[in-house]
Amino acid sequence: MKIFWLGLLMPFILCGGAMGSGPPVSEDTQTCLECHTMVHPGIVADWQRSRHAGITPEEAMKVKGLKQKVSAEKVPEGLSKKVVGCAECHTLNHDQHKDSFEHNGYKVHMVVSPGDCRTCHATEAGQYEQNIMSHAYGNLMHNPLYRDMVTQVNGTQFLEHGKTVLTPPDEKTNADSCLFCHGTVVTLEGMRQVETDLGEMRLPILSGWPNNGVGRINPDDTKGSCGACHARHAFSMALARSPSTCAECHKGPDVPAYPVYQVSKHGNIHSALGKGWDYEAVPWRVGKDFSAPTCAGCHVSLLVNGEGEMVASRTHRMNDRLPWRLFGLVYAHAHPKDPDTTIIKNKGGLPLPTELSGEPVSQYLIDKAEGERRLGRLKKICLSCHGSGWVKGHFARLEKTLETSNVMTRTATDILALAWKRGLAKGPGQKDSIFNEGIEKKWVEQWLFYANSTRFATAMAGADYGVFANGRWYLAKNIQDMLDWMELKGEKEK
Amino acid sequence: MKIFWLGLLMPFILCGGAMGSGPPVSEDTQTCLECHTMVHPGIVADWQRSRHAGITPEEAMKVKGLKQKVSAEKVPEGLSKKVVGCAECHTLNHDQHKDSFEHNGYKVHMVVSPGDCRTCHATEAGQYEQNIMSHAYGNLMHNPLYRDMVTQVNGTQFLEHGKTVLTPPDEKTNADSCLFCHGTVVTLEGMRQVETDLGEMRLPILSGWPNNGVGRINPDDTKGSCGACHARHAFSMALARSPSTCAECHKGPDVPAYPVYQVSKHGNIHSALGKGWDYEAVPWRVGKDFSAPTCAGCHVSLLVNGEGEMVASRTHRMNDRLPWRLFGLVYAHAHPKDPDTTIIKNKGGLPLPTELSGEPVSQYLIDKAEGERRLGRLKKICLSCHGSGWVKGHFARLEKTLETSNVMTRTATDILALAWKRGLAKGPGQKDSIFNEGIEKKWVEQWLFYANSTRFATAMAGADYGVFANGRWYLAKNIQDMLDWMELKGEKEK
Amino acid sequence: MKIFWLGLLMPFILCGGAMGSGPPVSEDTQTCLECHTMVHPGIVADWQRSRHAGITPEEAMKVKGLKQKVSAEKVPEGLSKKVVGCAECHTLNHDQHKDSFEHNGYKVHMVVSPGDCRTCHATEAGQYEQNIMSHAYGNLMHNPLYRDMVTQVNGTQFLEHGKTVLTPPDEKTNADSCLFCHGTVVTLEGMRQVETDLGEMRLPILSGWPNNGVGRINPDDTKGSCGACHARHAFSMALARSPSTCAECHKGPDVPAYPVYQVSKHGNIHSALGKGWDYEAVPWRVGKDFSAPTCAGCHVSLLVNGEGEMVASRTHRMNDRLPWRLFGLVYAHAHPKDPDTTIIKNKGGLPLPTELSGEPVSQYLIDKAEGERRLGRLKKICLSCHGSGWVKGHFARLEKTLETSNVMTRTATDILALAWKRGLAKGPGQKDSIFNEGIEKKWVEQWLFYANSTRFATAMAGADYGVFANGRWYLAKNIQDMLDWMELKGEKEK
Repeated sequence: MKIFWLGLLMPFILCGGAMGSGPPVSEDTQTCLECHTMVHPGIVADWQRSRHAGITPEEAMKVKGLKQKVSAEKVPEGLSKKVVGCAECHTLNHDQHKDSFEHNGYKVHMVVSPGDCRTCHATEAGQYEQNIMSHAYGNLMHNPLYRDMVTQVNGTQFLEHGKTVLTPPDEKTNADSCLFCHGTVVTLEGMRQVETDLGEMRLPILSGWPNNGVGRINPDDTKGSCGACHARHAFSMALARSPSTCAECHKGPDVPAYPVYQVSKHGNIHSALGKGWDYEAVPWRVGKDFSAPTCAGCHVSLLVNGEGEMVASRTHRMNDRLPWRLFGLVYAHAHPKDPDTTIIKNKGGLPLPTELSGEPVSQYLIDKAEGERRLGRLKKICLSCHGSGWVKGHFARLEKTLETSNVMTRTATDILALAWKRGLAKGPGQKDSIFNEGIEKKWVEQWLFYANSTRFATAMAGADYGVFANGRWYLAKNIQDMLDWMELKGEKEK
Repeated sequence: MKIFWLGLLMPFILCGGAMGSGPPVSEDTQTCLECHTMVHPGIVADWQRSRHAGITPEEAMKVKGLKQKVSAEKVPEGLSKKVVGCAECHTLNHDQHKDSFEHNGYKVHMVVSPGDCRTCHATEAGQYEQNIMSHAYGNLMHNPLYRDMVTQVNGTQFLEHGKTVLTPPDEKTNADSCLFCHGTVVTLEGMRQVETDLGEMRLPILSGWPNNGVGRINPDDTKGSCGACHARHAFSMALARSPSTCAECHKGPDVPAYPVYQVSKHGNIHSALGKGWDYEAVPWRVGKDFSAPTCAGCHVSLLVNGEGEMVASRTHRMNDRLPWRLFGLVYAHAHPKDPDTTIIKNKGGLPLPTELSGEPVSQYLIDKAEGERRLGRLKKICLSCHGSGWVKGHFARLEKTLETSNVMTRTATDILALAWKRGLAKGPGQKDSIFNEGIEKKWVEQWLFYANSTRFATAMAGADYGVFANGRWYLAKNIQDMLDWMELKGEKEK
Repeated sequence: MKIFWLGLLMPFILCGGAMGSGPPVSEDTQTCLECHTMVHPGIVADWQRSRHAGITPEEAMKVKGLKQKVSAEKVPEGLSKKVVGCAECHTLNHDQHKDSFEHNGYKVHMVVSPGDCRTCHATEAGQYEQNIMSHAYGNLMHNPLYRDMVTQVNGTQFLEHGKTVLTPPDEKTNADSCLFCHGTVVTLEGMRQVETDLGEMRLPILSGWPNNGVGRINPDDTKGSCGACHARHAFSMALARSPSTCAECHKGPDVPAYPVYQVSKHGNIHSALGKGWDYEAVPWRVGKDFSAPTCAGCHVSLLVNGEGEMVASRTHRMNDRLPWRLFGLVYAHAHPKDPDTTIIKNKGGLPLPTELSGEPVSQYLIDKAEGERRLGRLKKICLSCHGSGWVKGHFARLEKTLETSNVMTRTATDILALAWKRGLAKGPGQKDSIFNEGIEKKWVEQWLFYANSTRFATAMAGADYGVFANGRWYLAKNIQDMLDWMELKGEKEK
């Protein structure tokens, strides 16, 4: 496939990229390329290899059916007959971009957003708006409980009189940790004067920049960054379909999809044989283009069988094939109905999708029928390679793991509640953070790391991760450590 | 190589897989393919790319000498003239398979076992029976001590009156954790009626299903699953020779072969340059087909030098080239003579290959002479690329690491024994589990995680893992933590 | 590229490697090959694929400008007209090699050193002498504080009367852990008589062997091993440019460059698309030969833009593009001026580049102007793909992380100081090791693991690693654990 594209692009590449007999490049983009080929050779070369540089929207729209990549019904006249180059994206919708600035006669914005991409990729942008990831900024920062956790994790502690005092984290620190993945708020803060090789320039100062988080709040008020997965400026489908892309935000112990995948048979086959697969084919043919699913294969991509019949339709609402939210807050539960989870409140008044006892706050969560529909979509993919007994057995185990990992979270919660009650730690009753003391941090690890890891390990059949690497062993040990903590602190109180 | 096979198979693939002028496919298999190509496109495509689909046993048996892959002296007449397809394996030996069921006029079994594979691969199946992995189920579940550990790791804990009460794990949980790798017991539990696109069907209900564990107890009473490493339905040699295959069960801190390999020079070369190697060549030519060993290279594969002379013969008894069992239970020791380790009892009456003091229970373990023989086979491989001084120095360090890591395990054991004696924890004297209290869990980590990791790091020259990642640093720190635990608990008792 | 070289070498390979019409091999090397092709097939095959085997120094020196690989102005007459084979390196400078021995009429040394490699690669060897890595042995073992840490990590502990007694580590253990990467001292210890297939031989016994550490002390009194990154005997540039090479020593929690890279966008692109890059091209063209930097790309390699203009000059002093030493000892600080850090003493008399309070010991560290120069070189690389606002924002965050991670180290240090003062642990005041007690080990983890990991995560934009995997979460939690330790121990004292 790669060779095929290289072949297509070769004359174009050889003549310097922008001119010659290749696909038509707009004059505006040629103007950009005149300087930027030299100033930013890396991204220009990436773009030259991209599909964007190789075909016009008009040509791309002639592709119909499952091979179609441009989902907009109509692309504006001025854009359709030139390849998608620098100017096409970075000057698009400039009146909606508060970060637009005057640049050599153009109104340019740096932060290309889903609002821009939707010009051609309307269906995908629409789905992504309904994807819980697009709300990752607000769901974290506007939920007072999670926001406090951010503060306790990222703040700096000072020792004063034998106790620690917390200074809340500044914007840079949050941008560099939680918001790296969740997304920052990018706003125009002002302009700066810069000396460059090409003379003096006025460039914008952006808050929360750089950032490619999935829930980035863009200067045009849209949410997310398509570049989080389809990195600039190749916007490669192969990249988005590679597990390493998801690993950027899903490798740590809080949401260990990638390390689980690595020890699954799927991940094993990908590591060993994936170098020979075709990651660019649309639709993606099960068994022909790839022989074990990547993350995208199960959760996002349009899949067909050997006869070209649809196995799964493409979706950018990434829980379309997922009934459960494994990532426990603080228990595993059915997926929220609305991608904005700040609206959720439990009976105890906490902004959580379950009670502290584990009971789900049902009115905000999808019902059983919707869960079945989503699971049905996922199972259809599994059945491409596995018998129905296999699939049934697999998901029966997952349901059991949801149950037992929730029990182990409940037990840890009970111990913490007892510690609060006995006055060994300060909790909600004392209007104190529930994330700042030793035993509270052990409690967080119980659900955020160990219960979570155990569930991912089951869900994706990477058992090695779910036992001693970060799963059941620690679920069991941590409870004993919490009890020891309480016992020893309790001695003190006597 | 891949291209070579593709070339060979191309006419066959183009004509839909099962018919045409390609290698002869049996009528039974063609019947299977009629539906399953559509129903399970992924595995059919895998099989189409496999050697099984490309050559008949009769043809394969004409290959003699080191290139030979079919080791059986004779393959039954009915099987030898058709490629190895669906029906050939899934209807074979059906009277021995308790899971055989009536399926469209055939007696089919889902669980293809080493008993089936041995029809053509007799030598390998015979070796594997002697491989300790084939006994992985029984060695874990029929050893009362290890069984208790499974219970303590996988059980659910509830808080009652400030103490935890354990509910033992159910079958699903064990299948999803320890037994995922060790293997489940697969038995026919009954039949179920299923609605399918192709009409109503009666399909078997199997216990412990799905599973591909190395010690799976199959419905035909054989042990293991060839698919654990040679995953269905390509049964690719390249896959089995890739380190990611072994990582499925050997990545966690209990037996961290893969993370050690990754930071070794061997692993480095594999990561950087391995994409250009030939993983299908038989025999495997050192330096020509690959330039650094994978797991299989050192432990399994048939290797030759540039002149085609044997460096190592193929073995599926994977400790043929290993004198020591690094994986401490609870100390490193010489390998057991018998793959069934449930027969072992130490002087203290415990089912362990060493005393709690570290002294080996010699009568069950291979003697020095056999150890030398096994080490000799391994060293011969090392010498393909390393001088004798290098190899000598390397193994001298490993012997030292066995000694020091055993000392560090002994010290932890002494601390635990003291805690039991002082009544700070309940041990064998109180007929209590030795795996359920805080200090006992620290003790387990000392040998199962840290001593073990230190030894793997030395053995495979991945030092980075053996110092701060999971080795000596923690060996040393954990002892101080155990002492602190004992001191603080001891205060309490006063 | 690979194919290109294969093409070039094909006639040479086909005729058995050493003879025929290929590039001229010296008679001495042909003599070596006569036996070693059989005895060590792996390394001979590696060499046959190498550039060393494919071109004479004389030919290589005709390459001028940025494509030049041989940097010496003159190569000795006797060496220039034959390819670089066994004898060329292993008999070179034999009077300087204390490990030279008589071998079939030749004076051979096993340990080829930077002193040998500099014959052709003078510039690189000269730079490497100034690289802090070349002093890795002495900087660790001749610094009394760090040496004590080695002792506490690698020594064996015994339980006596309820306390632990430490036996210092032997030479083998150190060689197998810290010195594996830092380098051992290799000296000739004597000779040994060996029976081989080719008759009896006298071979040297070397201390500290095998070893490929970056600061190895060689028998010719040079420092380092070029083979640490350019592994023998292909000495592949592709290998040295692959991130897995650096991972050998930079993966553990003490210096987690590789795990951070893996979750960065750079690492993601490398994992997904790097199989198609040209790792052999000199100079290395940004965007053409590779589309995201590897470790070498940012820190070592000669890079050019699409017009062939230099973006960064090659350096083997690997902090030429780095102003800060992230790896805190115990705080992050400006890089030392001299690669020999044993000369550093702080005001408190400790051999550390900062005071225990964090204040830098400025006279030994590069000044602000030099820091700016180094950062300028790095930023120039970043700007190949990123706008100036992006780069500015990135490094502003790094400076903030240096500040906050240093605060979190300071707080842990304050707690430890308090514990020492209260007599809960024995510190410098009691002339006791500062690395041997429970709370001291927690303190080490604060700076060596967590502060360090947080900084690497920021520096290389791999945020996932810097939050829950090994960063800020633990920075915050560890402080609470240290306080709990002190409180519980303090209870005891009452």
